[in-house]
Amino acid sequence: MANGSPSNENSVENKIETIRWINGPNGDATGGHLRLVDQVRLPEKLVYLDLYTVDEVWDAIKRLSVRGAPAIGIAAAYGACLSMDPESDSTLELKIQKARKASEYLATSRPTAVNLFWALDRINARLTEIESQGRSEGFTGSASAFIQSELLKVAKSIHEEDRQMCHSIGQFGAELLKDGDHVLTHCNAGGLATAEYGTALSVFFTAQDQGKNLHVYVDETRPLLQGARLTAWECMQRDLPCTLICDSMAAHVMHTKKVDAIVTGADRIAANGDSANKIGTYGLAVLAKHHGIPFYIAAPSSTFDLSIPDGSHIPIEERKEDEITEGFGKRTAPVSVPVYNPAFDVAPADLITGIITEKGLIQPVDRQTVESVLDC
Amino acid sequence: MANGSPSNENSVENKIETIRWINGPNGDATGGHLRLVDQVRLPEKLVYLDLYTVDEVWDAIKRLSVRGAPAIGIAAAYGACLSMDPESDSTLELKIQKARKASEYLATSRPTAVNLFWALDRINARLTEIESQGRSEGFTGSASAFIQSELLKVAKSIHEEDRQMCHSIGQFGAELLKDGDHVLTHCNAGGLATAEYGTALSVFFTAQDQGKNLHVYVDETRPLLQGARLTAWECMQRDLPCTLICDSMAAHVMHTKKVDAIVTGADRIAANGDSANKIGTYGLAVLAKHHGIPFYIAAPSSTFDLSIPDGSHIPIEERKEDEITEGFGKRTAPVSVPVYNPAFDVAPADLITGIITEKGLIQPVDRQTVESVLDC
Repeated sequence: MANGSPSNENSVENKIETIRWINGPNGDATGGHLRLVDQVRLPEKLVYLDLYTVDEVWDAIKRLSVRGAPAIGIAAAYGACLSMDPESDSTLELKIQKARKASEYLATSRPTAVNLFWALDRINARLTEIESQGRSEGFTGSASAFIQSELLKVAKSIHEEDRQMCHSIGQFGAELLKDGDHVLTHCNAGGLATAEYGTALSVFFTAQDQGKNLHVYVDETRPLLQGARLTAWECMQRDLPCTLICDSMAAHVMHTKKVDAIVTGADRIAANGDSANKIGTYGLAVLAKHHGIPFYIAAPSSTFDLSIPDGSHIPIEERKEDEITEGFGKRTAPVSVPVYNPAFDVAPADLITGIITEKGLIQPVDRQTVESVLDC
Repeated sequence: MANGSPSNENSVENKIETIRWINGPNGDATGGHLRLVDQVRLPEKLVYLDLYTVDEVWDAIKRLSVRGAPAIGIAAAYGACLSMDPESDSTLELKIQKARKASEYLATSRPTAVNLFWALDRINARLTEIESQGRSEGFTGSASAFIQSELLKVAKSIHEEDRQMCHSIGQFGAELLKDGDHVLTHCNAGGLATAEYGTALSVFFTAQDQGKNLHVYVDETRPLLQGARLTAWECMQRDLPCTLICDSMAAHVMHTKKVDAIVTGADRIAANGDSANKIGTYGLAVLAKHHGIPFYIAAPSSTFDLSIPDGSHIPIEERKEDEITEGFGKRTAPVSVPVYNPAFDVAPADLITGIITEKGLIQPVDRQTVESVLDC
């Protein structure tokens, strides 16, 4: 398995950038590569991973070195740019075929987050344009360099749009919180899951930027502990007061402490507002209803899959047993015990108080309001 | 910290006994000791721990080498028997004082499970009897040997009663399950938590003995994974089909699979039926209600604390942060992250379908039915 090369520790920049394109030796896209924070290594070490091939990007997505629906989309778009090999130039058509295959392959890395397919659809649409442009106008020069530079424009645009979407989600979401609020989140929907700031965490970070004092309960999020490893780390990086709890403690916290709102991200949202997110989110939505606590999903419009009417059509990824039985390098269950390890669940629209998008708040959560806020 | 001595691996018996008193070299209580399955080592290794002093028993309870409300009570009662030192004999009064101090000390090992105090109250009551008997009748011979042998009778009686209670709970509980049922449990309320068979697991094991086919979803039970390590292991030992899930998956399982009943143990039950049990139980009770799944508590009458009117009076033990941040021998959260680690929560009576005791089923769960079934 190609793993990508971890950057030399000395090359770790001060400013944390989850995803960054690095140009090649000539200062342009040719020979460029993708640099990612290796999220599997956090919080122990902040290590950047340098990825030079499509295979390396596929592996990085699969093993969760890059995760979070928007970040997966951005990484996959850049990944498609790595499919061009300037050393072995051939016709534009053959190169486009190669780029399409790379895009198809990248789409197989994970099944649930729709941003992956959305980003690759934009890559594919640009490939189609390049193809017809090449046919009508003829083409001279390096097909590889041209395609790569065009795809890179798409990837960078997805990246920049995501940055803006996150800040916009933060603005709309922060209006829902007041000074002194205690909030709860699950998994990681922060800067590490997006271009920067995040979706759910952008709501908290933006409220903090506005001078509101918040305190965040962070679900550790078994099996892979994205909450403990990533969300707690992001909160601490920004001096946002937080308390780490096990997932099973959330109900007790809601019952015995002050919890003013729950905000999580999403990996795919159906046309009616049913939202797939990290396993455990559905349970939180039920518990929130029981305790009368508002439950919000924060996600960009690219997370919506309007082709499916409701959550029952969202494929739920099942992951390997050993994430549960020996997730931390130590076996913690009997050998050969049967295991069920769904990576996501679906919070139904009627348990969601509102969905915070970059285009505004969807409330009440139903097909009509989704359509009207997304303007589609 | 005294840790007790792990038995030589060769001495591991074929029949698994959670708790066993082993007589001294003369075949009587003098010089005897307590042998426990070291539950911290399961499922990796079945290791027995030999405990010779009160301190060693206190430590074994504190660090959860023995856990589960009934098993803690049994171990503490045997622990009190280890307070007598036949080598340094003195007056009956002084020896009784020493035994009382040992009992007081053992009561400080853990705060929530009431069986601990219940068992030590029985030890103390016997000490009071011995004291007045000694005063009225005079006393000759070894005070240590006499007290130890008398206390051992009490401990053995608690042990044997627990065995019978577990089987009786199993009988009453098994009536609630039918062939083909899928059930769900949290933490470990099995043979390892009791003299044998358990409370919640006794319900499943007894139904299985009656020829009913069951399938058990086992919550792994963070932070200490008693479900993954102990309950899954007990089910597999008995060829009872089980599936291990993370705690955060229980809601998704209830929603998407067939779950016919949820049964857990309890650590303390108030007079109105509010039940403290392993953290996560309260959330399960809420989720069960939402999904229309019957939620049962299985516990012996010794788990009831009729001196408190409701669950708000049950002290909730908070445990160390590192159980959450480095529970798997590897740091999984940022250094110095604030942590909240309550070991228990309280399922309120109105979310409990029934409490299965050795005296019968308490249903509906309220003060009146508790009193009438417990006959108090």
